[in-house]
Amino acid sequence: MSEKISPLAPERFPDLPQIAGVSFAATSAEVRYKGRTDVMLAMLAPGTSIAGVFTKSSTRAAPVLDCQAKLGGDNAAAAAILVNSGNANAFTGHYGQSSVQEITTAVSSATGVPETRVFTSSTGVIGEPLPHDKIIAKLDELAAAQDANDIEAAARAIITTDTFPKGASAQVDVNGTAVTITGIAKGSGMIAPDMATMLVYIFTDAAIDQTELQAMVSRLNDVTFNCITVDSDTSTSDSLLVCATGASGVDVAGHQGFKTALHGVMQELAHQVVKDGEGATKFVEIHVMGAATDTDAHVHAMAIANSPLVKTAIAGEDPNWGRIVMAIGKSGAAADRDRLSISFGDILVAENGWVSDSYSEEAGANYMQRETIIIHVDLGLGDGASTVWTCDLTHRYIEINADYRS
Amino acid sequence: MSEKISPLAPERFPDLPQIAGVSFAATSAEVRYKGRTDVMLAMLAPGTSIAGVFTKSSTRAAPVLDCQAKLGGDNAAAAAILVNSGNANAFTGHYGQSSVQEITTAVSSATGVPETRVFTSSTGVIGEPLPHDKIIAKLDELAAAQDANDIEAAARAIITTDTFPKGASAQVDVNGTAVTITGIAKGSGMIAPDMATMLVYIFTDAAIDQTELQAMVSRLNDVTFNCITVDSDTSTSDSLLVCATGASGVDVAGHQGFKTALHGVMQELAHQVVKDGEGATKFVEIHVMGAATDTDAHVHAMAIANSPLVKTAIAGEDPNWGRIVMAIGKSGAAADRDRLSISFGDILVAENGWVSDSYSEEAGANYMQRETIIIHVDLGLGDGASTVWTCDLTHRYIEINADYRS
Repeated sequence: MSEKISPLAPERFPDLPQIAGVSFAATSAEVRYKGRTDVMLAMLAPGTSIAGVFTKSSTRAAPVLDCQAKLGGDNAAAAAILVNSGNANAFTGHYGQSSVQEITTAVSSATGVPETRVFTSSTGVIGEPLPHDKIIAKLDELAAAQDANDIEAAARAIITTDTFPKGASAQVDVNGTAVTITGIAKGSGMIAPDMATMLVYIFTDAAIDQTELQAMVSRLNDVTFNCITVDSDTSTSDSLLVCATGASGVDVAGHQGFKTALHGVMQELAHQVVKDGEGATKFVEIHVMGAATDTDAHVHAMAIANSPLVKTAIAGEDPNWGRIVMAIGKSGAAADRDRLSISFGDILVAENGWVSDSYSEEAGANYMQRETIIIHVDLGLGDGASTVWTCDLTHRYIEINADYRS
Repeated sequence: MSEKISPLAPERFPDLPQIAGVSFAATSAEVRYKGRTDVMLAMLAPGTSIAGVFTKSSTRAAPVLDCQAKLGGDNAAAAAILVNSGNANAFTGHYGQSSVQEITTAVSSATGVPETRVFTSSTGVIGEPLPHDKIIAKLDELAAAQDANDIEAAARAIITTDTFPKGASAQVDVNGTAVTITGIAKGSGMIAPDMATMLVYIFTDAAIDQTELQAMVSRLNDVTFNCITVDSDTSTSDSLLVCATGASGVDVAGHQGFKTALHGVMQELAHQVVKDGEGATKFVEIHVMGAATDTDAHVHAMAIANSPLVKTAIAGEDPNWGRIVMAIGKSGAAADRDRLSISFGDILVAENGWVSDSYSEEAGANYMQRETIIIHVDLGLGDGASTVWTCDLTHRYIEINADYRS
């Protein structure tokens, strides 16, 4: 973890309630880093439903491929999630697959969990062989040290060069019984020497069939983690696992309150990843409405969020709405220059194909000094809408990614 | 023009041969800049075929829409191209269309060219009304001062915050007669306060039917200007016009040598735009081969060229090939991690899904110190190929686009 904490970081790691049926342990295996924890083992009670979403990268890492193959199987047995930081085991050829196999076999021996219920993730440098023996040597210790309260230790062990550990939780009343959701994430931090990777683990004591959980998680992922961007670059390791132990005895299938609560936890973790975006000094929310379709709205919103010219203008506190017009124009989705309107927060900036009569550059410039910037775009074409989140593009991003060798 | 000239700039503006049937003049109308020329008028002989390619932005500027409507009409009359810098007349609503109309009417009066043969471009800030009266007041002077040798003056008048004027030429022997091509361009310079715009004007004394010229230019544009990127942001004003006066009396329809020469001029101007990319210190050529299709190869090449993580690694002279793997993985085009190979120049870096046995980090690091970086990617899937050009992403880019107000 960097010594320089993001100015957008929360004051402290939240108090996360424990989830019946889930326990954690973390330790130092010195995969790459010294003097910090870098491997965590989470244990899940028999009957836990596990849903997952993974990077669509065609060069995805060996542990990702292994997890994808295991989702949706029989959930009668206990399960385990093992994560190491410091090495992504990505672009490591057949050796990478062997490492995953060695680790899952060893986790199975240490915990009694069948191999088909062992999920692993690796994050860090790519193209270097994973020293899996160092991890395997710690498994008995990790299995013995399991503690339902150790989720913060797990959150700290999985970060690479993030500037803060990330966690969020929610409770929801389902027919008179409290159901709890907690989650942790890493990602978008200061990465040396390789690309950002995002890992997210969410746990709940709700009871829910895996197929139903998977469908819910996939839908919610589309409006949370798939709606954030720091630099338009997609990791080879991105992974999200949601694990429902069922320990509350409450079936949440079709329960809107549970879905809303899970949505809230996923969104909060997604926002924390953006707030730890490399070099970020501003948190930016982009609402696009009035698009021909929701897909068009998302394409426009992402074009704005990924535009280096928009992101540098925000870093410079410059209300440069012309760059937003440019990003909409290049996105490829339908737009009509003369129906478009743009606001910064409540300040109407442009409408009818031109700058608004009521807009003053001073009002725009004052707004841009805020830490959270909200950009509204109304395309005036239809009902399509999308909201995405990003951060600004600063000198620190260049320092982190270009200058670290010097 | 910035005081700080790109380190990749050519030593001087080239000696461009004159083209029979084409003349130029430039002057200062003080549209925005003081103490420099900012408007140029080019006059084209009767019978000149004019082909054009324009930005696909859905928020494109009024002059672009006007040019697009005029291409391909009857070419019996003389023609005129009027360009101003300092104001893009983009996102200016109905006022913008009126400005174009006022200017084309006035150019027609001053030169005797019919309005349907008056092409205009504007480049600079967007969202501000174009002070077209200032331009109109200079038209008689520009019409009177026409000189076949003044192409460099024209090249200097159209730049905004480019760090050098851009020009290129070629001569080709067609059945014993010399045919000449010259062109000028502006773009990708240090832009304040708005986005980069690219304008290109190419002239030749070749004789060629407009339909045939348009088809040739569109094809060549796909492998030249459409293969460069500085920051993935697309201008609302990008315009390329190719004008064939026919004064050589040589019909070049179907002549491969002419096509090759025109390709060369377009490629050289495209390279000059990249070499004046905002903050550029490295010129980067990306060859992708072995893709399933040419389109897939182009998608991969552009994903690499637009990746902020690849571009910052190049700025930092870091042979970070893992980021190239990442960019290929995220591009959405077909790739097989284990068939992929990557080279820096002649240095084989990765193959068979892993780092090459012969690769040394030292050799890679030495290579990255060059001013021109060539990245070869072979996907091992088919015959699809594409070459694109870009520059690195440096602190100067952030300074230019974020810090100019401070």
